[in-house]
Amino acid sequence: MKIAIDAMGGDNAPESVIKGVNLAKQEFPDLEFQLFGDVAAIKNYLDDEKNVEIIATSEVIDFHDDPVTAIKSKKDSSLVQALTAVKKGEADAILSAGSTGALLTGGLLLVKRMKQVSRPALMSTLPTSDGKGFDMLDLGANTENTAQHLVDFAILGSYYAQNVRGIEKPRVALLSNGAEESKGSPMVKEAHELLSGRTDIDFIGNIESRDILAGAADVVVADGFTGNAVLKAIEGTMSTMFKMISSTIKSGSLTTKIGGALVKPALYSLKDIASSGGGAAFVGLKAPVVKAHGNSTEIEIATALRQIHKMLETDVTGKLVTHFEEMS
Amino acid sequence: MKIAIDAMGGDNAPESVIKGVNLAKQEFPDLEFQLFGDVAAIKNYLDDEKNVEIIATSEVIDFHDDPVTAIKSKKDSSLVQALTAVKKGEADAILSAGSTGALLTGGLLLVKRMKQVSRPALMSTLPTSDGKGFDMLDLGANTENTAQHLVDFAILGSYYAQNVRGIEKPRVALLSNGAEESKGSPMVKEAHELLSGRTDIDFIGNIESRDILAGAADVVVADGFTGNAVLKAIEGTMSTMFKMISSTIKSGSLTTKIGGALVKPALYSLKDIASSGGGAAFVGLKAPVVKAHGNSTEIEIATALRQIHKMLETDVTGKLVTHFEEMS
Repeated sequence: MKIAIDAMGGDNAPESVIKGVNLAKQEFPDLEFQLFGDVAAIKNYLDDEKNVEIIATSEVIDFHDDPVTAIKSKKDSSLVQALTAVKKGEADAILSAGSTGALLTGGLLLVKRMKQVSRPALMSTLPTSDGKGFDMLDLGANTENTAQHLVDFAILGSYYAQNVRGIEKPRVALLSNGAEESKGSPMVKEAHELLSGRTDIDFIGNIESRDILAGAADVVVADGFTGNAVLKAIEGTMSTMFKMISSTIKSGSLTTKIGGALVKPALYSLKDIASSGGGAAFVGLKAPVVKAHGNSTEIEIATALRQIHKMLETDVTGKLVTHFEEMS
Repeated sequence: MKIAIDAMGGDNAPESVIKGVNLAKQEFPDLEFQLFGDVAAIKNYLDDEKNVEIIATSEVIDFHDDPVTAIKSKKDSSLVQALTAVKKGEADAILSAGSTGALLTGGLLLVKRMKQVSRPALMSTLPTSDGKGFDMLDLGANTENTAQHLVDFAILGSYYAQNVRGIEKPRVALLSNGAEESKGSPMVKEAHELLSGRTDIDFIGNIESRDILAGAADVVVADGFTGNAVLKAIEGTMSTMFKMISSTIKSGSLTTKIGGALVKPALYSLKDIASSGGGAAFVGLKAPVVKAHGNSTEIEIATALRQIHKMLETDVTGKLVTHFEEMS
């Protein structure tokens, strides 16, 4: 199992990326790595070169670059070179903490989609109050979808939850504005009907975004525009609540301040739960393509590499290709 | 100014509803009320009958009733009778804490939409970390919208923020999957272009749902499906975080428990902020139609009545009718 690493992508690159690789090397002696980027900078943080190949690249794609232009013009960037290694079959998967847009564009152009999946999707494992988490897709790879796309998302998500997260029979739900099957946009109603007829997934019906964090489903399917809006609403609410709690404590009575100081470690443990799900997987492509947060720590990089290890070990991508081929 | 009250709608009806009316009667001697419901039960909670007319009704529409069927068949329900009073011009506005679906259906059928607004919208004032709040619409009156609907929503929201919330020049933003104008679904991109050309509102461009609670805009416009999903994601995240904080504190060390007990009142004050925005207004109708939460306390009913008082006092509905007439 060989993973191509965009060593230069992300706010703390290459330091956190390489330190995360060091951690993953200890945990998984069966993993090999191709590190793309500035050789001297990479060597500066790398513990040892066992199972590692370093490939020099001269360019970096950053968050300000237009994704399509960057992928087409920065041919010697760490991202394009890493994607190309996967395309050529020299690596089995890729991890980047750089620009999401560039990874989505490059993934589609170079790694390419599974033949039967017309619209790959971005998927993350989000936290639930019971600690088990759920997978949600599409989180924004698409801005407009059809009912058939949502069916593909349901299959992709179900296979991922089963193989990577070890859930025997993942409960797949469709995001709507009410739990009843009569609820939803015309597209969601059509998707509901299509999903109800399937025997290859455990479709449990509609779900409201109010209930997703409570663990009511293992996989939540939405069109990319809505999924993106819901994900960012969750992130924004968490961040705003942490800030408000902080400022309420600061401006409160002495009692509140003391209480706040005592309870702070517990609040921070909640933040950890929220970031423990690994990176966002761009599913529906011919190989695992995973995006870690731009400001990932070395621990988060290692978590994303554990996720990729599991994707490769279970061959979830190969199983999906077979499944879609049998469907068509 | 006369407000029709669906006294029987809501989990704590008629008690909270009537006690809320008692509070509003003290605050606004200029308000008159028509209370629709069970006369004995209403009188049981009503402080005095000054400025109050009680109208006996024999039926109640509840959350399990199909909205359309209920509005058409339960003619002597407190809701249908209250809506009919507004339709006939006997009352100027209506408040209900009952079924949202029934109020939306009944509002459209009886109060009716402004001639130029093809799709009325559900709007709430949501909390921001700076305490100022923002108005968001549509929160789910519609499951599918066009770009022109979004333009109407922007005008409705802007007038509301200016008149009812006293914001001189409300900043109106369009919910999208990125701040850049190139981002969005085809419909959102079209709405962006239409909104950019307008001089009657202060359109500040796209906003991501991550930033809405931070107060980046005074009015946020979305299609009803996405707006509903975002609202419920915010509610679900807040509720999940409160539960997780609670359980982290309970299962924590003695220090954490003591801290939790000291900080709890501060956490609860946050909950209050979240519910201080009044009811959800069904805007685009010919008169103010406001929905209070099903489990509203008397304070929340009084807050919703303060909101309706402001809507009537500023004649925001009349101003909107004039504005739309001049546009067409």
